[in-house]
Amino acid sequence: MLGQMMTAPLLISSLIDHAENYHGDTTIVSVETSGGVTHTNWRDVARNARKLGSALHKLGLDPQTRCGTIAWNNRRHLEIYFGVSGAGLVCHTINPRLFPEQLIYIINHADDRVLFLDATFLPIVAKLGEHLPNLEHVVLMGPRDAALAEQVPGLMFYDELIETGDDDFEWPDLDENTASSLCYTSGTTGNPKGVLYSHRSTLLHSYAANLADSLGLTAMDVVMPVVPMFHVNAWGVPYCAAMVGSRLVMPGPGLDGESLVKLIDGEKVTLALGVPTIWLGLLAHAKGMGSKLESLKRTVVGGSACPPSMMTQFREDFGVDTIHAWGMSEMSPLGSVNIPLAKHRDLPIREQHRLRENQGRPPFGVELKVVDEDGGTLPNDGKTQGDLLVRGHWVIDSYFRMGDQDTLQEGWFATGDVATIDPDGFMTIRDRSKDIIKSGGEWISSVELENIAIAHPKLANAAVIGVRHPKWDERPLLVAVAAAGETPTEEELLAFFDGKIASWQVPDKAVFIEALPLNATGKVLKRNLREQFADALTG
Amino acid sequence: MLGQMMTAPLLISSLIDHAENYHGDTTIVSVETSGGVTHTNWRDVARNARKLGSALHKLGLDPQTRCGTIAWNNRRHLEIYFGVSGAGLVCHTINPRLFPEQLIYIINHADDRVLFLDATFLPIVAKLGEHLPNLEHVVLMGPRDAALAEQVPGLMFYDELIETGDDDFEWPDLDENTASSLCYTSGTTGNPKGVLYSHRSTLLHSYAANLADSLGLTAMDVVMPVVPMFHVNAWGVPYCAAMVGSRLVMPGPGLDGESLVKLIDGEKVTLALGVPTIWLGLLAHAKGMGSKLESLKRTVVGGSACPPSMMTQFREDFGVDTIHAWGMSEMSPLGSVNIPLAKHRDLPIREQHRLRENQGRPPFGVELKVVDEDGGTLPNDGKTQGDLLVRGHWVIDSYFRMGDQDTLQEGWFATGDVATIDPDGFMTIRDRSKDIIKSGGEWISSVELENIAIAHPKLANAAVIGVRHPKWDERPLLVAVAAAGETPTEEELLAFFDGKIASWQVPDKAVFIEALPLNATGKVLKRNLREQFADALTG
Ligand SMILES: Nc1ncnc2c1ncn2[C@@H]1O[C@H](COP(=O)(O)OP(=O)(O)OP(=O)(O)O)[C@@H](O)[C@H]1O
Ligand SMILES: Nc1ncnc2c1ncn2[C@@H]1O[C@H](COP(=O)(O)OP(=O)(O)OP(=O)(O)O)[C@@H](O)[C@H]1O
Ligand SMILES: [Mg+2]
Ligand SMILES: [Mg+2]
Repeated sequence: MLGQMMTAPLLISSLIDHAENYHGDTTIVSVETSGGVTHTNWRDVARNARKLGSALHKLGLDPQTRCGTIAWNNRRHLEIYFGVSGAGLVCHTINPRLFPEQLIYIINHADDRVLFLDATFLPIVAKLGEHLPNLEHVVLMGPRDAALAEQVPGLMFYDELIETGDDDFEWPDLDENTASSLCYTSGTTGNPKGVLYSHRSTLLHSYAANLADSLGLTAMDVVMPVVPMFHVNAWGVPYCAAMVGSRLVMPGPGLDGESLVKLIDGEKVTLALGVPTIWLGLLAHAKGMGSKLESLKRTVVGGSACPPSMMTQFREDFGVDTIHAWGMSEMSPLGSVNIPLAKHRDLPIREQHRLRENQGRPPFGVELKVVDEDGGTLPNDGKTQGDLLVRGHWVIDSYFRMGDQDTLQEGWFATGDVATIDPDGFMTIRDRSKDIIKSGGEWISSVELENIAIAHPKLANAAVIGVRHPKWDERPLLVAVAAAGETPTEEELLAFFDGKIASWQVPDKAVFIEALPLNATGKVLKRNLREQFADALTG
Repeated sequence: MLGQMMTAPLLISSLIDHAENYHGDTTIVSVETSGGVTHTNWRDVARNARKLGSALHKLGLDPQTRCGTIAWNNRRHLEIYFGVSGAGLVCHTINPRLFPEQLIYIINHADDRVLFLDATFLPIVAKLGEHLPNLEHVVLMGPRDAALAEQVPGLMFYDELIETGDDDFEWPDLDENTASSLCYTSGTTGNPKGVLYSHRSTLLHSYAANLADSLGLTAMDVVMPVVPMFHVNAWGVPYCAAMVGSRLVMPGPGLDGESLVKLIDGEKVTLALGVPTIWLGLLAHAKGMGSKLESLKRTVVGGSACPPSMMTQFREDFGVDTIHAWGMSEMSPLGSVNIPLAKHRDLPIREQHRLRENQGRPPFGVELKVVDEDGGTLPNDGKTQGDLLVRGHWVIDSYFRMGDQDTLQEGWFATGDVATIDPDGFMTIRDRSKDIIKSGGEWISSVELENIAIAHPKLANAAVIGVRHPKWDERPLLVAVAAAGETPTEEELLAFFDGKIASWQVPDKAVFIEALPLNATGKVLKRNLREQFADALTG
């Protein structure tokens, strides 16, 4: 017997309808690609999204046609998120910093027919032209630009395109499991793979992310997603913000520390989200500029491990609470978030801080477990490490167009991360399975070594990789980036590990490098470092 | 094309699994029907729920068999919520204060085969015996009691029943639209009608209620649902609490002000939820007992209009924030909740307080509108009142076993309430359409008059009803309950309205009564008052 309640589908269009109806006046601040800042609001974003949806329908696209975007975090990109998915098409966000061959591969693999571009990226795409045979429409995200129109035949302009749409367009009624958006993984460990989200998975993810005990966006918040919109839908922030009507600050192309500090202070941002490398830059600049980041209450840090020293800085120097979260493209992305429990309240304050350092617990709707090589569940004892497996309402079932390749292990998705889980369910990422260092029969967590190194005052950044060793198979190598004006010695860096970790885990050697190779989302490309320093201990 | 994400059903069993896995140690405080207080935790509640589910399966009940409960808010009732629904049966919560004929009607209409009872209610049910021909199992919620076993042949005992179940019972996999629980409306305006919730509607409601901008329960909260578990699933609090692992305080039979104050102070309750009449008693006692309700941060008040003077008292005397919410059995129940917006932050403080008085805005997932007699949508101008219509993921589609009666108007459910909605979407309940007073061609809101009267220091409670009038059709009558030791005069009460409302709206007369007739959820039965005072202005 079924219940007798209404059963409407969970659709992304209802998110933007809600934002329009209940938060129409709420401001969306957008740093434009052409410079300058625009203030719009949810009402206008919703109207433009509808007009875009209508205009795309008039182009005669098939249902769920992929529409690519190569763009910064800005208002037009936000409209595209809702307009494309709302209209029953698939919003495919593309990482602009991929190599040309990767871009060609992804755009063709996704079979994108439409491509929305910020002006910044026109030159890149212009070069790819002939390799993208299926592309039908290229849309520049801005007003008509006569010079560009002449240079690039057939180029469409976003502001004109939406004027061909009706602003009383009615969102189509869809099966809630319909594909809504597509994002490829960051390509940190290999080639990017496509994850095809559905309306349902997106909405359930938004509810869970907005729980008071998760990210908990509110209508009082001024939220700045520094995490790019081409990186797992900016962690879902656009959808979460629409669900509760937060004010949004879209930082556009200016992701340097100085621009971000100015935006936070100028727009009174209360909650900012991004990867650790971005915050390294921001913290350094905020101090230099004498900013106290007065308005900022919370940062959400994820994408790679947040060094404890960063949390301390945020807390002690700026009064900002850091929420450490873990996730992945395959999880929409939220997998876990570190929020304290009632029983922590009476612990000594240092202990409370220490408990905030790990990657946290899953919100209701996803489950985590660690398993051994045979898939046997390991105990949640905070010590036994194993492969981290996940399942839930916003977890991938299979990769887009990867044939019948079996993605799941008995219904669970293997993350490729190695983790421990403590008896309260708090999870610590020890490492990626590809990055963990196998020294003699023992495993060394590169993340743990990096967390120590990065706290050294003379370093701006650091990575630890495993390199070939004649006796131990692999040994850790510290790859260090000196802070501006500093010249740390190898000896002092290695000595810095003393007493902080077992001595057999201390790196064998430190090498210096100008800057770490980062992928487009700010993650260290350790496979590049491993290649570059392959012979550091044998050569 | 569908998305490629996992698609597990949204099931109530996964809520209790989550609470067990991630909040197993978190305490559940339960005032026992037999007196005394028990401390248990989510782990034990989950284990008992599984054992109960297993035991019920062993009884050979059909899928979705209705299992009635007539019980207080306590730990066993909590286990029944999850055990019955989790096992694929329907948990039918019954209001013990209904008249015997109503109980017979409801139990037979629902076709309950099992009935769980707190000892308090055994005498009531014993009397109904022969009128409940389909009832197969009556389960007393406690350990075996030899005397009772002898008195009532066939009586089962909860603590024994669950021991027949397996604690490694696996929850069945169900369609998420399967019926999970059943609750009849409060019977304020007529006979109670059955609302049949589904697993999906319950889970989506829980997510929405737990948004930071709705009720926003957290793992830090100590939550006391004073609203009974037989009243729309205690407003969904048991599910919401399991979703985030709040500590629960179940007040059992002691709903008097003194018991509640002691519980709040003793168990350090941070969030309490209930109807206004309950809080009237509590506030009076807290003052008398010299309690400051130190731990209490928030109250959620709904079920009937929260008088502004109550909010003021909570705020000024106890530092408690009152969250005014509106809902109904047909909405699971959450329809709207009053939480401030960012743009309110800079208003004068009095204005901010005033804006908290109305019934608020819908969380994402439900929609509200006001319409005229022909169903035409009225403007959200804060002035035009009309019939309030709703739709959404946790709104009724049709009443249980009411044939093909058309419950919806073009997909919307008519609430029976009359309301206005302001341009920001804040909704004010003017009245029930059955209670609104039609004086000459004009409508007078009984709620508005009551909100004024109740603030009079010499009154303990007050209701306003429309009674027959030779010239004006209907005119308002004030039915007043004097505060202990006070003897207000009719004149001073009527004078109290001066300047607070247009003079033609002031009640024609005041009458005094010992106590207002309340239904089981603490709502004033105005139809009784209308009968009793039918001739007050003509007789
Ligand atoms: N808080 C965190 N701490 C440590 N690692 C994290 C954290 N958050 C994310 N990660 C890492 O990022 C991964 C997910 O990143 P994403 O989906 O963006 O692509 P990627 O894994 O970097 O790229 P690819 O899968 O293509 O190699 C996780 O599997 C984990 O290794
Ligand atoms: N905050 C509130 N302010 C004013 N009225 C409220 C509020 N919350 C609930 N109500 C009233 O309670 C009603 C819902 O109550 P419920 O579903 O418990 O049954 P009932 O309507 O009292 O009983 P019945 O439908 O059987 O007459 C709403 O329709 C509304 O009239
Ligand atoms: Mg990956
Ligand atoms: Mg009703």
